[in-house]
Amino acid sequence: MEKWRAADRLLKFSSRFASAVNWNNSCKSKQGKYFYSVATTVHRNPLFSIISPDDISYFKTLLGERGVVQDALALDAANTDWMGKYRGSSKLLLQPKNTEEVSQILKYCNSRCLAVVPQGGNTGLVGGSVPVFDEVIINVGLMRNILSFDKVIVSGVLVCEAGCILENLISFLDDEGFIMPLDLGAKGSCQIGGNVSTNAGGLRLLRYGSLHGSVLGLEAVLANGTVLDMLGTLRKDNTGYDLKHLFIGSEGSLGIVTKVSILTPPKLSSVNIAFLACEDYTSCQKLLLEAKKKLGGILSAFEFLDSDAMSLVSSTTFLGTENHGQEVIKDKHGQDFTSIDLRALPLEFWYSYASGSIFMENLEAFLLHSVESGLVANGVLAQDINQASSFWHIREGLPEALMKAGAVYKYDLSLPLEKMYDLVEEMRVQIGPAAKVVAYGHLGDGNLHLNISAPAYDDNILAKIEPFVYEWTSKNRGSISAEHGLGLMKAAKIHYSKSPETVRLMIDFDYCVFELLPDTSCLDDNHSIICLCLSA
Amino acid sequence: MEKWRAADRLLKFSSRFASAVNWNNSCKSKQGKYFYSVATTVHRNPLFSIISPDDISYFKTLLGERGVVQDALALDAANTDWMGKYRGSSKLLLQPKNTEEVSQILKYCNSRCLAVVPQGGNTGLVGGSVPVFDEVIINVGLMRNILSFDKVIVSGVLVCEAGCILENLISFLDDEGFIMPLDLGAKGSCQIGGNVSTNAGGLRLLRYGSLHGSVLGLEAVLANGTVLDMLGTLRKDNTGYDLKHLFIGSEGSLGIVTKVSILTPPKLSSVNIAFLACEDYTSCQKLLLEAKKKLGGILSAFEFLDSDAMSLVSSTTFLGTENHGQEVIKDKHGQDFTSIDLRALPLEFWYSYASGSIFMENLEAFLLHSVESGLVANGVLAQDINQASSFWHIREGLPEALMKAGAVYKYDLSLPLEKMYDLVEEMRVQIGPAAKVVAYGHLGDGNLHLNISAPAYDDNILAKIEPFVYEWTSKNRGSISAEHGLGLMKAAKIHYSKSPETVRLMIDFDYCVFELLPDTSCLDDNHSIICLCLSA
Repeated sequence: MEKWRAADRLLKFSSRFASAVNWNNSCKSKQGKYFYSVATTVHRNPLFSIISPDDISYFKTLLGERGVVQDALALDAANTDWMGKYRGSSKLLLQPKNTEEVSQILKYCNSRCLAVVPQGGNTGLVGGSVPVFDEVIINVGLMRNILSFDKVIVSGVLVCEAGCILENLISFLDDEGFIMPLDLGAKGSCQIGGNVSTNAGGLRLLRYGSLHGSVLGLEAVLANGTVLDMLGTLRKDNTGYDLKHLFIGSEGSLGIVTKVSILTPPKLSSVNIAFLACEDYTSCQKLLLEAKKKLGGILSAFEFLDSDAMSLVSSTTFLGTENHGQEVIKDKHGQDFTSIDLRALPLEFWYSYASGSIFMENLEAFLLHSVESGLVANGVLAQDINQASSFWHIREGLPEALMKAGAVYKYDLSLPLEKMYDLVEEMRVQIGPAAKVVAYGHLGDGNLHLNISAPAYDDNILAKIEPFVYEWTSKNRGSISAEHGLGLMKAAKIHYSKSPETVRLMIDFDYCVFELLPDTSCLDDNHSIICLCLSA
Repeated sequence: MEKWRAADRLLKFSSRFASAVNWNNSCKSKQGKYFYSVATTVHRNPLFSIISPDDISYFKTLLGERGVVQDALALDAANTDWMGKYRGSSKLLLQPKNTEEVSQILKYCNSRCLAVVPQGGNTGLVGGSVPVFDEVIINVGLMRNILSFDKVIVSGVLVCEAGCILENLISFLDDEGFIMPLDLGAKGSCQIGGNVSTNAGGLRLLRYGSLHGSVLGLEAVLANGTVLDMLGTLRKDNTGYDLKHLFIGSEGSLGIVTKVSILTPPKLSSVNIAFLACEDYTSCQKLLLEAKKKLGGILSAFEFLDSDAMSLVSSTTFLGTENHGQEVIKDKHGQDFTSIDLRALPLEFWYSYASGSIFMENLEAFLLHSVESGLVANGVLAQDINQASSFWHIREGLPEALMKAGAVYKYDLSLPLEKMYDLVEEMRVQIGPAAKVVAYGHLGDGNLHLNISAPAYDDNILAKIEPFVYEWTSKNRGSISAEHGLGLMKAAKIHYSKSPETVRLMIDFDYCVFELLPDTSCLDDNHSIICLCLSA
């Protein structure tokens, strides 16, 4: 059993995403242009109005001075996405304090034909949370109240405003003995309204399922100001079409989510994480299947990072000079993980039994068997919560490590498990020595985060990646966006994953039901999936 | 520990719902009328055509003789719901063999302005699966192929046609080492397409969540014949609006589901069921909370039946003369459950650990603690799978026992846990001695099945129940349909659970996007939620 001992040293670094307000200018693109396929051109829809001084006056009367932001620095942050790839030119950021103000803002914008873009923590990676042109930015960050959590009945139903930061909800629930069914690296900045609007997946989907399963209700404001009360707190409600699902994952394009009701599971008494190394992807895949079979309900995450990802997170200055990755994960013989040809993956186990030690024996037996059968080449089992956290920091720190390493082209794909790593290897051949292909992701959900890391953004590299990556994914019946959404980056690529008939229906929703005016009419001949949001 | 021993005798009876084809005429209503509020009147929309001989010829050419059913007996069964409450007068039942035929049927009906109603196993309880007037019945029961189940990758994704009977899927998966996330009493007749179309809840929702979480993809045919391919098999796919959710629970009103892709969890190595008695509802409620806290992830069901339900299931001839309920559930002292003032509830525990005996000790400790703390007055823990099944038969046999007992008014409500039983007690006062109020349901999901059992249907009794039950539910922010759907019974009652704005949007979907013509225009001034479905 000694093999599964603690790591000798722990990392100390922050894996938080920069918040919108504290956005780091040094991350901005050096080229100042959009990084999607050159074939995609975007023009401002001339039907939209330009903001006038009268508009500003109206908003100041409605929201007060504090709610109307025109400061250049703040606007620059709100206009630019976290990766520094997408940049709008909005002159106005509005910060409503409640649903009624959101409704009034939208009603006014509707009457004036002003384009708007809803924004949460601005941690998205596909250009969906920033303006494309001069849209009015509506940020619900001031709407951050927890409205109810039933302590008496212990139903686990949390009702809160859309601007609540995910990490704050996680902390609140932890004190109450519950956990959020959703966790992701950006938790320090992202907001629950944005999470719901983008149907964020994250690290616990394997166990707790998608937000379509755990969100019980929503309140949303439509483009014309209509407040849609779907804020149920019931587990079951079969009375008509379940419209809230349209808002989950529609990226703010149908309305602004203002309140959320979400089912949270009880916190379990114990948690443990193993950080394991497999010799190849096939072993990883087999290990996942074994873990699902043997550990079933208690397996809450099964992540994956390949050896290039492990090298990156171990070597970048991002980890600090004192705590190199090589020192972090060592087995008892002092051999570090990066010295073997590995795919490393943290598995998280949550369990709830009175006798943690009994369970631990079962878990250790499973891990030992995995080693003996050759599926696992090496591994460490966290001995306490701090060590468990440090393992997660490695996984969660990857996006930031990639940012520090230079330019990065990010793809968020769902693929059949057996095909997933083929794409990585084919992409390495396709790209050649010009860039490094770094793969990690949520193996348990079939979700690959494919990153092409280069010294600088380069159209020649992009041309080798796209449309190859989309065509490959489509051919293998994958999804070109597993959890990040389409945003500006992939709005025009929707046909790679959706049939023409379903896209046609979406368009009908936009125009016929929600009466939206496309803000970027050329994104797609038919469709204005991204951003927003103005009633015609 | 001895307290938690097996029941001494086991029940042997079938709890299957009668299938549509084998529908039992003796169950028919003696009054031959609709049993919803008298205020609801329904008129046939005169815009719909009447079936002509040419239509019949067309369908025979398309489907062959076998696919065109005009036999009086078969039509009678298909025109009448399982409860014998709702009866249409359709002259034509069509049985397509594949999606293309469904598409051709709908396209033709659309061009001819013929109203249609989709039908699965016809086990629904709200008049949603039978014609209201002379609609063409489209039954997808011949589309019963399992299309794929990935044995190599063990992803657990099952893809099948809509007409597959739920129990057949359960058996198929059992052989493969998996289970359906959905189980319900009607499993012997109901079809997966109907389950999905009505968003069936059932017995495992507590653990595996709703179909919105486990259905990964759908294929559906719209009223104009368009085939909508949303048959993804991925756990994550954030590319545009997730339209499949509109079809889950829309009761066939937007289109006919023809194929389903569903995520199924691995079968766990052990299962156990306790059948417990509590002195009152408060104890039941507290026991649920304790079980959720202490047993967390392994608790897969927490059902509830009150003492009137227990008496009913114990005393009706339905149980057979040899095996009375009183003999079934006895503790070691020979005291039967029905002799104390109880709420009896089977809890199901699934677990997956190598060492079942270790887990069993934990489970027994939990149950013993529940007895010692006074939450549980008495109880039995099943000792083998047969005993476990017999406990489930008691619970699943309740609908049929109620049918045998006479007339029954059925309500399927979601209510806040702490209020749930207040309604039952208030209803008893409201009804008086004229009828018996029998309560059971999925306590773990906050879902009450409220039944008013009377010797015969009686408008005076109905007037005491409605609108009282709906008003009470609405006042307490419950849902007037937890899992059965609206159907004809509650289509006009939607406002008790949904806001005017959301109902307005549903109407827009019907008319603007799906271009439907209401078949029952007076059901609601605005809305044609039930049946369907013909493009204008």
